[in-house]
Amino acid sequence: MTRRLSDIASELGLELRGEDMDVSSVNTLENAGPDEVSFLANPKYVPQLATTAAGAVICSAEFAGEVKRALVSENPYLDFGRCVSLFAKPQGGMKGIHAMAFIDPDAKVAEGCTVYPFAFVGPRAEVGADTVIFPGCYIGEDCRVGSGCILYPNAVLMAGTVMGDDCIVHAGVVLGADGFGFAPTPYGIQKIPQIGTVTIGSDVEIGANTAIDRAVLGTTSVGDSTKIDNLVQIGHNVQIGDQCLIVSQVGISGSTKVGNNVTMAGQVGVAGHLTIGDGVTIGPKSGVAKDIAPGLTVGGQPVVDKGTYIRTLTIMPKLPDMYKRLMRLEKELAELKNEAEK
Amino acid sequence: MTRRLSDIASELGLELRGEDMDVSSVNTLENAGPDEVSFLANPKYVPQLATTAAGAVICSAEFAGEVKRALVSENPYLDFGRCVSLFAKPQGGMKGIHAMAFIDPDAKVAEGCTVYPFAFVGPRAEVGADTVIFPGCYIGEDCRVGSGCILYPNAVLMAGTVMGDDCIVHAGVVLGADGFGFAPTPYGIQKIPQIGTVTIGSDVEIGANTAIDRAVLGTTSVGDSTKIDNLVQIGHNVQIGDQCLIVSQVGISGSTKVGNNVTMAGQVGVAGHLTIGDGVTIGPKSGVAKDIAPGLTVGGQPVVDKGTYIRTLTIMPKLPDMYKRLMRLEKELAELKNEAEK
Amino acid sequence: MTRRLSDIASELGLELRGEDMDVSSVNTLENAGPDEVSFLANPKYVPQLATTAAGAVICSAEFAGEVKRALVSENPYLDFGRCVSLFAKPQGGMKGIHAMAFIDPDAKVAEGCTVYPFAFVGPRAEVGADTVIFPGCYIGEDCRVGSGCILYPNAVLMAGTVMGDDCIVHAGVVLGADGFGFAPTPYGIQKIPQIGTVTIGSDVEIGANTAIDRAVLGTTSVGDSTKIDNLVQIGHNVQIGDQCLIVSQVGISGSTKVGNNVTMAGQVGVAGHLTIGDGVTIGPKSGVAKDIAPGLTVGGQPVVDKGTYIRTLTIMPKLPDMYKRLMRLEKELAELKNEAEK
Repeated sequence: MTRRLSDIASELGLELRGEDMDVSSVNTLENAGPDEVSFLANPKYVPQLATTAAGAVICSAEFAGEVKRALVSENPYLDFGRCVSLFAKPQGGMKGIHAMAFIDPDAKVAEGCTVYPFAFVGPRAEVGADTVIFPGCYIGEDCRVGSGCILYPNAVLMAGTVMGDDCIVHAGVVLGADGFGFAPTPYGIQKIPQIGTVTIGSDVEIGANTAIDRAVLGTTSVGDSTKIDNLVQIGHNVQIGDQCLIVSQVGISGSTKVGNNVTMAGQVGVAGHLTIGDGVTIGPKSGVAKDIAPGLTVGGQPVVDKGTYIRTLTIMPKLPDMYKRLMRLEKELAELKNEAEK
Repeated sequence: MTRRLSDIASELGLELRGEDMDVSSVNTLENAGPDEVSFLANPKYVPQLATTAAGAVICSAEFAGEVKRALVSENPYLDFGRCVSLFAKPQGGMKGIHAMAFIDPDAKVAEGCTVYPFAFVGPRAEVGADTVIFPGCYIGEDCRVGSGCILYPNAVLMAGTVMGDDCIVHAGVVLGADGFGFAPTPYGIQKIPQIGTVTIGSDVEIGANTAIDRAVLGTTSVGDSTKIDNLVQIGHNVQIGDQCLIVSQVGISGSTKVGNNVTMAGQVGVAGHLTIGDGVTIGPKSGVAKDIAPGLTVGGQPVVDKGTYIRTLTIMPKLPDMYKRLMRLEKELAELKNEAEK
Repeated sequence: MTRRLSDIASELGLELRGEDMDVSSVNTLENAGPDEVSFLANPKYVPQLATTAAGAVICSAEFAGEVKRALVSENPYLDFGRCVSLFAKPQGGMKGIHAMAFIDPDAKVAEGCTVYPFAFVGPRAEVGADTVIFPGCYIGEDCRVGSGCILYPNAVLMAGTVMGDDCIVHAGVVLGADGFGFAPTPYGIQKIPQIGTVTIGSDVEIGANTAIDRAVLGTTSVGDSTKIDNLVQIGHNVQIGDQCLIVSQVGISGSTKVGNNVTMAGQVGVAGHLTIGDGVTIGPKSGVAKDIAPGLTVGGQPVVDKGTYIRTLTIMPKLPDMYKRLMRLEKELAELKNEAEK
């Protein structure tokens, strides 16, 4: 698929500096060929402007003079994404409900939906228009899935899961497995039945093999436009707000409330029954054991404010040296006191 | 489904204080309506007793006077769970072996079992009575699954896996993938074939997308009534005892032996070839590199006793300050010595 | 299956010390019966030589005198693996393309392949000779899978994934889910479409429920003979070299380049856009936020050289004590200065 660079510029509302040309795709500065568009968003890659073969580069005005052709952007990463959209095409390509799919007679699958072979849609489940259900998906009884969603292969929505419109659920996701609720008793561990559900907003994306547990009572919820990466664990009765970014391998324990616009970097762990305020950012591998007030940027185990965290990272490798110096100080001080007492 | 509160009280063996009524379900203090039963188990939620609309509350005698109707309990969390059981119903609802399932002619599936469409039961596999196998499950050759088990969608039991009765295996679980065994050689990395199996006791629950590897030789084992959360990794030849609680995203490396009644909080990592004694509790995100004696509560990286761990968490954020104070001490002491030498 | 011990010795090129015999299998020192071969590779298990019932033991010359029969080896772990291979048999056992599999008419599945029921092979996908595709696998459109591969149940290869020969992909693996790419904008979070692919070399093994994301542009790549454990997360555009060992629950963020012969222990986290040199070893649970030069062994959060890391682990539990001693020093020094000023 070839496009005129000037057409791309006008579709994206960007100024084209340099001669018009045909472009066939989008690529990184390092790998782009002469008929491809590239972009500069991370300052780390400025040196590649000198060597890239790209036919055109989406970049800020500051760098437009350094490339053959520039699409001048105030947010190059976003406009790169919008440019990629012009070349992207949806996966799969099948249409309609395949004969090897299983649709319960009491399920309602709206017009325009695609259901692949080996997908299962249970009793009373409702699926909105134009939603695509890939092979191996399981939509349990009484689920309600909105319109325009994509459920990639082997995604599982256990009974009663509710999902808004335009969600993307990647392969292997499990929504609505039982929360981890057990009561220790003198006779052994007793399971607390988990009779709540999972509720996902609209425009939510959930990464591969992520698990979001059903509530013990009520619902575990994820707000609109929140994006969750791969292999994330979200416990029962967790409530996550809108527009959050939850990076890979994060674990959030039961009943914790996460506000809007919260970012958690990879491998963060959050204890249960906490409140994480709006706009909080949590650094990678952090361990959160207390509430976090809105707007804070924190990191570490236990989490502290960003400044302290970064200083701690600098000091940590000096710990063995600090210990030696502490012992020397003790010795010297003892000698000095000894001296003084003479 | 509506039930008489007095009937619930008598079924659970609890004293009802207050007038009898009809109740329709169970809910949290925050969300319960006037025809619902709630409970108080976590002291954090005591203030909600004043505002809850719940028709009745399962709580200790201490709080019974503060609510309209109380079901007086010595273990409110457990009795709440037992109460929920009265309202819970099993997922799915299909009965029998579906025509779109694949059952090998040499497999034995006992009476009362349900096998959903797209489930696969391999040669010589044996499945006990009343076990339910959801869509997308794979039961490999020579597996033996007990009676009364539930295998949720896309659970995978590789060849030879043995499982007791009344187990719950959540969606996406993988039992019996090859252990991670490789020998470095001058010619490159050489795979050590993994010819052992996985053995799961009775009354075990395994969370979504958890992986338990087959042994290189012999068997990887999980004892009776042990409960494992989502996204947990259990390496080859690990032996886990009875009544353990293994929380989400824990990783246990190969050949480690875990006793009975052990609790590991979220994201703990345990090295290989270790022995973790009976009754041990390990705090969240801890890194275990040495044996742990029975009965200890530990935490941290490396793990230390609970007291030291909690004090370390308090001191850690002071590390940058400690470094400054150490440098100041060195300077002051040097000055003092200088002075003294004069 | 019984084999003559002398035949095993000659197949493996090892010297047999002691009388010949028939052996039926391979087992650990602890569990081996008198007709089984065992091995000694980890010095921790030397004491078991005295008590093992094993008929023969693969061990170094040093220990050959301590057992009934020895197969003398310079690399007992490797030769144990080679010995196990003689007794191992492939899982499954089905042959050919099952009628309940879905193969797109435009897909090419080479001779000798096995495709199980409920597996899906999409348009224009190409699968090389003798590859085995277990139930529930999804091979998206335009994938190219080499020959001699094994894709265990529910493995997912999204559109365009390329894989070499002789790879082993364990159950629940997801290759080619969208990378986690979003641009914050004044109007909310905007998805960056991910139009790249995933490229896996030959002789690669990928553990259960691991996720490797597709590149935003270009390809996420894993080199030949690299072995990846369970529940690992590999972000978009990551490049991993040959002969690496990536242990369970590791997370590698987008665009990071990992050299050849790199080992990452369990639960390591690596930030994005970094370069990890050839031959690097990273200790368990480490957090990597900077490039690592070739050949280094590092550990910790943040990572430091191995010596410093081990010393830090020793000092860490002394931190509360250090704080007390620091305060005492401050007090004593103040007193001493006070004294001196008098």
